[in-house]
Formats: sequence, C-alpha cells, structure tokens
Amino acid sequence: MLQRLVLFLALCASPAALLAQDATVARVASPDGRITVEVATDHDGRARYSVARDGKPVIASSQLGFLFTDVAKLDRNLRIASQSTRYYDDTWEQPWGERRFVRDHHNELRVGFVETNGDRRRFDVVFRVFDDGLGFRYDFPAQAALQRLHIAEELTEFTLAEDATAWWIPAQEWNRKEYVYQRTPLAEVGFAQTPMTLRRADGLHIAFHEAALLDYSAMNLVRVEDRRLRAQLFPGTQVAKVSRAAPFATPWRVVLLSDEAAGLATSDLVLNLAPPNALGDVSWVKPMKYLGIWWEMHLDTRTWGSGEKHGATTEEAIRYLDFAAEHGFGGVLVEGWNLGWDGDWFANGEEFSFTEAYPDFDIERVTAHARDRGVILIGHHETSGHAAHYEDQLADALDLYERLGVTAIKTGYVADGGQAKVRESDGAIRYAWHEGQAMANHHIRVVTEAAKRRISINPHEPIKDSGLRRTYPNWVTREGARGMEYNAWGQPPNPPGHEAALVFTRMLDGPFDFTPGLFSMRSRHGDRVATTLAKQLALYVVLYSPLQMAIDLPEEYEAKPEAFQFIKDVPVDWEDSRVLNGAIGEYVTFARKDRHSEDWYLGAVTDAEARQLRVPLDFLDAGRTYTAQVYRDGPGAGWQADQTAIVIEQREVTAADALTLALASGGGQAIRFVAQ
Amino acid sequence: MLQRLVLFLALCASPAALLAQDATVARVASPDGRITVEVATDHDGRARYSVARDGKPVIASSQLGFLFTDVAKLDRNLRIASQSTRYYDDTWEQPWGERRFVRDHHNELRVGFVETNGDRRRFDVVFRVFDDGLGFRYDFPAQAALQRLHIAEELTEFTLAEDATAWWIPAQEWNRKEYVYQRTPLAEVGFAQTPMTLRRADGLHIAFHEAALLDYSAMNLVRVEDRRLRAQLFPGTQVAKVSRAAPFATPWRVVLLSDEAAGLATSDLVLNLAPPNALGDVSWVKPMKYLGIWWEMHLDTRTWGSGEKHGATTEEAIRYLDFAAEHGFGGVLVEGWNLGWDGDWFANGEEFSFTEAYPDFDIERVTAHARDRGVILIGHHETSGHAAHYEDQLADALDLYERLGVTAIKTGYVADGGQAKVRESDGAIRYAWHEGQAMANHHIRVVTEAAKRRISINPHEPIKDSGLRRTYPNWVTREGARGMEYNAWGQPPNPPGHEAALVFTRMLDGPFDFTPGLFSMRSRHGDRVATTLAKQLALYVVLYSPLQMAIDLPEEYEAKPEAFQFIKDVPVDWEDSRVLNGAIGEYVTFARKDRHSEDWYLGAVTDAEARQLRVPLDFLDAGRTYTAQVYRDGPGAGWQADQTAIVIEQREVTAADALTLALASGGGQAIRFVAQ
Repeated sequence: MLQRLVLFLALCASPAALLAQDATVARVASPDGRITVEVATDHDGRARYSVARDGKPVIASSQLGFLFTDVAKLDRNLRIASQSTRYYDDTWEQPWGERRFVRDHHNELRVGFVETNGDRRRFDVVFRVFDDGLGFRYDFPAQAALQRLHIAEELTEFTLAEDATAWWIPAQEWNRKEYVYQRTPLAEVGFAQTPMTLRRADGLHIAFHEAALLDYSAMNLVRVEDRRLRAQLFPGTQVAKVSRAAPFATPWRVVLLSDEAAGLATSDLVLNLAPPNALGDVSWVKPMKYLGIWWEMHLDTRTWGSGEKHGATTEEAIRYLDFAAEHGFGGVLVEGWNLGWDGDWFANGEEFSFTEAYPDFDIERVTAHARDRGVILIGHHETSGHAAHYEDQLADALDLYERLGVTAIKTGYVADGGQAKVRESDGAIRYAWHEGQAMANHHIRVVTEAAKRRISINPHEPIKDSGLRRTYPNWVTREGARGMEYNAWGQPPNPPGHEAALVFTRMLDGPFDFTPGLFSMRSRHGDRVATTLAKQLALYVVLYSPLQMAIDLPEEYEAKPEAFQFIKDVPVDWEDSRVLNGAIGEYVTFARKDRHSEDWYLGAVTDAEARQLRVPLDFLDAGRTYTAQVYRDGPGAGWQADQTAIVIEQREVTAADALTLALASGGGQAIRFVAQ
Repeated sequence: MLQRLVLFLALCASPAALLAQDATVARVASPDGRITVEVATDHDGRARYSVARDGKPVIASSQLGFLFTDVAKLDRNLRIASQSTRYYDDTWEQPWGERRFVRDHHNELRVGFVETNGDRRRFDVVFRVFDDGLGFRYDFPAQAALQRLHIAEELTEFTLAEDATAWWIPAQEWNRKEYVYQRTPLAEVGFAQTPMTLRRADGLHIAFHEAALLDYSAMNLVRVEDRRLRAQLFPGTQVAKVSRAAPFATPWRVVLLSDEAAGLATSDLVLNLAPPNALGDVSWVKPMKYLGIWWEMHLDTRTWGSGEKHGATTEEAIRYLDFAAEHGFGGVLVEGWNLGWDGDWFANGEEFSFTEAYPDFDIERVTAHARDRGVILIGHHETSGHAAHYEDQLADALDLYERLGVTAIKTGYVADGGQAKVRESDGAIRYAWHEGQAMANHHIRVVTEAAKRRISINPHEPIKDSGLRRTYPNWVTREGARGMEYNAWGQPPNPPGHEAALVFTRMLDGPFDFTPGLFSMRSRHGDRVATTLAKQLALYVVLYSPLQMAIDLPEEYEAKPEAFQFIKDVPVDWEDSRVLNGAIGEYVTFARKDRHSEDWYLGAVTDAEARQLRVPLDFLDAGRTYTAQVYRDGPGAGWQADQTAIVIEQREVTAADALTLALASGGGQAIRFVAQ
C-alpha cells in the first residue's frame, strides 16, 4: 500500500533556491542550493543547458534538440517563450525495495521553447533538480505542426566541464549489456551505454542514466570529441528511431552527482522521476529467495534440451522444491521444462512452446507439490528474443501459470544485439534492438499482462531499468549485466572487482538477478571463481534483488550448513539501505535493515586487494544491543588461496561500536545483527 | 583518351607474394611482400581479418559482417568455402589529375564465406593489396535467401594493433565536414569521419578511407573502446541505411600505409579501386583557374540576394569576365544570379529557380560576352540541400547552361547535417544526410546528367570523393572541408597549420575547391588571416584542384601584379606530383610538373612555426637547366608580422642543386621552374 506521508506542493512558489529568472535565461537550483542549472539559447538560437555544483561547472553548455525523419530538425532559431518553477517535497512508500520510504524533494523548472521561424513549433524542457542530481526531459505539447514525431535522433549532449575517470561498457554490441565494466579516462570513452559513471579528480562522482524509459528507445552516449558526449538512441524498426504522437514526454535524462560513490548507490532520484505505481494493489508481489534447476546446465552436467541429461524432470523439480521448503526458500526456477530446446533454439525462437512441457516434466504434479509445500514453481519463458512469437502465446502462457500458482516468471531474450524480433503494425516481423522502442513496449505488455494475473516478471537479456519498478511493481528484477553465469563458462570470467563495480554502475539502473551463493567455487572447467565463501554471503546484502537466487546445488549447501545459514536468514526486502563506504570497482560495504524485523545486515566485498575496512555501527538503533553473527574470511582465505576458509562467530555490539572488517583478496564479509 | 600502356593480368597466378592458402585461413600479400593480410573465421564462425606490414601487426583481428533490418544478421556461423587470388599490374592514363599515368599494381584475394546453418547465405570479401595499402569490399552474389539487402549496419571493424596519433573531424555533426582537423591520441578518437589519418610511434602512417562510394552510405568510424573502430554508416531515408538488390558490391574499405606522410598524399590506391571512366570521351572537361563574384559576399560588402548590394549584376560580371580574359583565367563564377535568395533560403530550398535570373543579371548578355572573350561563366546552383527540388529542375537548368556555353557548375548543398531533402520512390520528401545512400545517388544523377551536356560539376557541401573522379571525370572538384571562406567569418578562422593538415587528411579523398589566392589578408572583421602572401601562392601547388579559384577581388590582384604573376602562371593539370617532405598539420612541400610543358612548380607551406626546409631538386630533369622564379617570404614576413613581405627573385638551377626554403610563421614559398 502506498501511503502519502508528507505533501508540500507549491505551484510557482519561490523558495530562495529558485533563482531569479529573465527572458533569455532560465535558472533553477536544488533544494539545498548546491546544484544550479542554467538554460538559455545561443547566438544561433540553439537551446543549451549547463549544470554547476557549489558554483563549479559540472556540465558545460550543452545542446538540446531533435532530428526528425520527415520534417526539419528542431534545434536552431529557438527562443525561450515561457518559464515556470515548482517546489516539491513528498515522501512515498515502496511496496518493496531498498528502503520503505522515499523522499521526493526537488525544484522543477519548465522552459518553453518556440521556433522563431517556420512553423513556430514548440516544446518544453522540464528540469527537476534534487540535492543529489537532476533529470530533464522534453515535453511536446499537442500542436498542428508536430502531430506525430518521427525522431531520427535526439540531439541531447552532455559536455563534461572537467576530465574524469569513467566506468562504462560499450554500446550497440552483439552481447547486449554483458560486458565487464572498464575504467578509462573520460577522454578514452568511446561509445558507451548508460548508466555510465564518472569520478573527477576533485572527488565528484557523476552518473548518466535515464528514467521512465517508456515507449521510447534507450539512450547510449557516444563521445563525439573532447569531453562532449552525445545521445545516440537505439535504432528503431522503422526509419524513425522513435515514433510518438504529441503530446508526449521523453524519458528523463539523468545526471546523478555525489561527493562519494556511496551517494550514487543510495540515490532515489531515478525512482522519483518514474511514474507512480500504475497497478494499484500489489500486495501479491512477493520478494523471495529461490533455488533453481539451472547452474547444472551452465556447468554442462545437465541440459535444457531433452534426453538423458535433461535437467527439468519431475523428480528433480520435486527434489528442489522439497529442499526449498525445508530451508525457507520461496520458489524454485526450472529451466528447460517446455518444448523447443532441442534444435538451434538460439536462432529459432519460434520453436518454443510456452504451454507444453517435455514429457518428463509433469507440470501439474510439480506445481501441486509446490503448493503442498508452500513454495512456488518459478516459471520460465525463454524467447530467444522472438518477442512477437512470445506475444502470440503470452495470454495462454500466463493463464497457465496463473492456474498453476506460478506467481513469478523469469523471461529470457537470448539473441544478439539487434536480433530481437518484433511484429510491426503491418504484420511483418522486424529485427529490433533489445532496448529500442519496440522492445520497450514489448516489456510493458508482458509486465502489465502478467500483473493482471498477479504474476511478477524477471527478464533476462532485458531492457535496462529506469525506475519503472516503481510504476510496475511486479517488474521485480532483471539481468542486464554479467551475472554469475560468466563464472561457469565466461572467457574471461568475472574479475574480482566486478561486484564492486556493478554497485556503482549497472545497479544504478535497478535490481539485478545476479544469482549469488556459489559454494562450489569452480567453473565448468574447474577454474577458480574470483571469490571467497564469505564474499558469496556478502553479495546477498551488496547486490539488491527482490528475487534473489541461491545459485548452487542443494548438496553444496548441505555440505556447508553453517555458511548456508546466512543465506537462509538474509531477507530480500528492506526498511532501509545504507552504503557505509565504497570505491568503484574496488570495494563496498552495505548495511540494510530488514523490513520485517529489527535486524540489520551488513555485506562488504573487495576486489583482488585484501582490505581492512573500519565501520562504525552507528546505523544501529541507539541504546539497543545486537548479536552480531559474523561470517568473515578465515585465516588463509583468498580467491587464489583458500576460498572456503571462513570464520563464523558471534559478539554483542551496539551503535557505539565500530568493527574492522578484514576482507581477503577477492573476499568479503557478511553480518547479521540480531536485535535483542 | 585512356591509353592502356601495360597490362599484365594472370588469373590465379602465384607469384611469391601470394602466400600459401589452406581451408580455414586465407592470406595475401602486397606485390612487394611487405603488407600481408590474413582472413579467417573464429570459434563462433565470425569472419575476421588482420593486416601486418613487415611482419608487424597493423590491424589486429577485426570483425566483418552485416546487420539487416528484415533478416538475421550475417556474422556468425560462417566458414570459408572458397578462395582465389589474382595478380594485377596495369597502368592507365588520367584525362586530368595530379599525374598523367597511374599504375595499378596489386594482389587480389577473394574469400567466399558461407553460413553453416539456416539459409546458407553467401558473400565474398575481396581484398586488393597494394604496396601502399589495401582495400577490401563485400561482394554479394545473387542468391535466393538474400535477393534484396536491407542493411541496418555494416559490422566492419578496424582494430589498430598499436597506439597512434590521430587526425580527424567529428562525424554526423550539423556542420557536415567543415571542422578543423584535431590531433589526439587514437585512444581519444570519438566518432570520426573518413578519411582519418593516424601516425604510430614507429613512424608508420595509416589512413582509413573508402573507395567507390556508389549507391551506398558513407562510412564513419566510431571508436567503440580501446583501439577498436567500428564502421557506422550514415542513416538512410528508410529503416535500412542501405538497400540494394544482389548481386552488388559495397564500397571498398581502404587502409593506406606509408612510412612517411608523403606516401599517403601521393597514393593512387583509392583511384585504382574506383571503376574506370564511365563517360567515354571526356576531352571536353577543362581544368582551369577561375575568378568569382563571391568573396565580396563573404566579406558582406555584396549580397547574394537582390537589392543595392547585389553582387551578381551584369556589369560586375562583365568586369570580372574582362579581367579573367585579360589575365588568362578560364572562367568566372557568379553566385546569387538566380531567383530565390531573398527569403530564408537556408530553410526554403524550394524557392530557388535554376533557370530564372534576377532582372539585373542579363545571363544571355553575360554569357555572350564570355564567349566573345574566350572565357566561360561558371554556373551556380545552390540548392540549400533540397536535392529533390533541384532534380525537378535539373534537365532544364542544365539545358540552359549548355545552350549558354556554361561548361562548369558549382553546386551547393548548404543545409545542416541530416537536413538534405530527397524524394522517395513513393513521392514523399524525406530528410537525408549529405553522405547517405540517397544523396550518393543524387550526386551521380547530377554528374551523369551534366556529362550528357559536357558540363563539369564542382559540388560544395558535397559527399566525399572516393575515387569517383576517375569514373566520372566531369566531377572535377568539390568542397567538403573548411575552405578559405572560414577566414572571412569563421569562429575560429582556419589555424595556420590547416592546409598542412588538409593535405594528409581531407585531400586523401580528392581535389578540394579550397579557393586560395587571398591577397587582402583580412577577414570581414579586419582580423588577420593566418597566412603570408607567399603562402597564398604556394597553395596553388599544395592544394590540388582542377578548378582552382583566385579568390580575391580584381583590384587586389592589380595592386600586386608581381605576386599575381605566379597565379597567372601556375597550371591546374599535372604530368606528375611529388611530396618532397611533410608532417601532418605542420608543413608540406609539393613539386608538380606541368602536364602541358616541361616546367615544374613547387609549393611549400608551414604552420605557425617558421621553418627552413632543405629540398634537393632531383625531381627536375637531369642535365637540364631551369630558371627558378622564386616567391618567398621576405624579411619580417609572418602571419602575425608583415603578411605581404615577399621576395620575388630568379636563379638558374639544375637537378643537382638543392634549395633551402625559408618559410615564415604561417608562411610559404612558391617556385616556378622554367625549363630552358
């Protein structure tokens, strides 16, 4: 249930932070006054904006505008025809999330531009400036000269005022979003996806992202030259990258700003820019931990397809369901249950049936057993990116799962970049990018159809999140990065600093179904995974996902029951989340409070460097005593040394204490603070 | 007339330079054996190629392939099904050019790829390896599964094996190709146009370009990450960037290689890859120098539009024609002669009439006067990029000029990038990029229609050249870079090293109508242009253009008759051209031999640094004496000092002599060697 706790809304109010306006320049500042935005037109009548923080330039004067396929572009001969400001301070409640209450506190500036020649076309640019960054978007009113927009390119630019170090992955590549984040000087950024994160020499952290990616193509950033980044939208399935009828507003272009990396990872700005819950009662969305018949396939000891090694058998599913019920997990994912996996499914998504099981998988019996045990079967719909084929079966597939009590589905879109398939209005099948407008709309269709049946969705090879878990709370998590599976077969596997990079890059986007909990520590080739056992536990706190997997085989967990206890204990829904320290790609420590108890949890991970991190416990309730159940790297631990050396111990602590976390190379630490 | 002088063609010959072949890897080397190319498939069946020189990697393993809009991409599951080699050595004659005879000496490797699954689609990649670089292109045979190709993107990559310094201009920008070449590390290249030039620490010079850009979109290069450049074609006017029926071949992707910058500027590789003359007798194409009613408009003392300041009046044209005839010029360009200049012509190209003159310009009388004086009026067709509107009038406009004896036309496409207008097959007007497939085809229509009437074409705001002056010899020159006009009003104006950068970047593309010969040395604001008088003369030798302008006003030339003499003497068509020295963006010295006499000419220019360049005269005929007419920077000369200080002197020289050219800051030197 959403509760509106605080509401202070003043149209055209003028707190001190809203700066003076004049006819040719518009300005707005963050509520705390530190971030200022200036919007103006230049000598050619181009719309431009700039951003400063504490008076120091962050984004130098940067262009705004659009190219169209059918009418003249909209970027010159503009004047500011109107401007208005609004102050906003509200707090809203999340149905689930990293924190229960989210404050939305910003100043808004709406600047109306109009062409000084031709058709006098109009658009507004709306800036919302928060204490931790800003978002802006284009808002096109209904108008005779722009009834339907066929956008060839969005001309939005982001010209950094200073050099910086960047963490980023390449854009429009065959492997979608599954790349190791690279660290380069800003000047060596090529063609990058968003979120992209930067750190200046003065310590300022900057992240570029977007919010409310609805009926539009996702934005990549090409560094054209120098420090100038230009938006480049994913291609569409027609000549226009995006087609929309006016009135409409684009997604928000987001710039997060923070003195510390931590401030990026705890920002709610993107959520605040997304539309509120559109689904009404979503009490049926259930965060949970789950197991799966899955890792065996990545280890190549089982197969998705039928035959002797088939993983998705009735017996195996029941074994997993029993194990899940016994240990308090909410569900079991079973992949390879349905017809279609036996040919070249990668290239032939139309072979998949989403309602017909293999003969050795009795879905009625499996789901009946699940209901008996109080757990769920987590459904699986791999599409090979053939969204059109999936949509053809969507209603039937969801109806089936609804009837069987399958309340969460992992969907999959395994296809190279540019090779998703969608159906156009003329009936033709067209190739599409995973993050283009057509696929953005496909995901909304799946999520809303699923919501009608009280089913949650966890897409893999997805479109990026952009705060839309707020709008559609059954869109609980997703992939969209290099997950644990790369440690089974990746060349190279994930590096030791991968998770500490993800927190400040990919995870600015939203929850990630990374699938932690690897106790076996080895790839399918027997190579070491860059982790310790304690790090695997810590990831449950570090990498937020409302659907959180325990990746390994039941027998691996049974072999290490003491360590497994943390996975059983750790919640997946939080009252609050804090980042206690962190450096991108190096280390990070999270503290999170359980939403359903007074307990706190802590997770810390490091890269290849062993570290000692001093952590004051002042996040705990003052005056209360907690039993800290510590899972730490033991003597000799290290990802290239003893990966399973772990010390599990207890001590009493209070908020006045501080701990020194000793992390081994590639290691981590997990702590449960049990409130007395 | 073309003469075939030498022909040695051996199908499947195996000189030593053609390396051993096997079933999974194909190899070919340059005739001198220094450049080797290897083509193979990787573990995913991706087609890849690599290039080495003297055994040292130049292009590391780089991908080949295609994305389509309507069928699955073509880049995995490929195998090499066939390979063949061919040795070629021929010399052909240019109707006009930088040298009369061009040797085409290369080894060719044709590799046939076929898919191992699905529709077993096929394509060949054809490499031609010369001693100074290579070209490769995709060749699609007719096949049932690929009858018409709708190309979403060409997946060609160029991964440099080593770091380098790059000279480049940004791609897909509003100002098309009119940017100052920037010099950055390769790692800081963003989104670049071709030609782009690189220099490695070991001195190897590398230039990327393309040849035979026919019915296709031009190629830009985006540096995705590290040293990996990926082709990005200009957008099309339909969802596909390029649509073609098979069989067809793409443009050649060109890599020039040279130990010295000079080797790039004298390479004929791009010309050799272009199709031979398609027009037959082109003896009517007349290289010439010309004057124009033009610079006054840039200085804002005259206007294109009608009224008191109108430049294109009958009287003014006749004054120019008389001056041209008196001083041996071939023609006079008159801009602003036709109806359409009085409104917002930049945005309303459909206002232009290409057959109706302003009342104060009597085109019949002007052209009759021109004929009487033995010179021509050079026609002018500014389209504002509205190619469709121009094509509607093209036949009439060309017929008019043919009747009036106007045998050369400067066309213009002043519109921002992405704002050209073309007509689609359905009759709709679509916005297009200047270098997309639609405009590539437009230019061919104009050039071939003009050829029927024995008219030569000089487009401004053009598509890049790609050797097509060989195929269509009436496509004599073009703009497509920052010309002299930027010194009238550019912010900033051209820097002192601009011309020495152009020689090794833009001019790898082909002739450039830069419009040298500025004697007045000042912008419209009175600012100094970064040149000396001697440099302006040198540019006639340095910057090749068969239509070569003398930019300034007649009175400026009359005021400096001694310096003007060099402009009057210098030819525009060459028997041979040599680059004696040069460093990109710093300095360069050209020697060229007149095609119609035994005289040689030398031009040298420098950037802001004053230089002494020692130049052996061994290019002169041995045993012959020449009178060297020297035009050199005089005492106190320099672009920020005395711009017009010039010494004009004579001396006798032979091939055994050497000269030391003393160039002032921003200066130059021009020499005519008159054969005795």
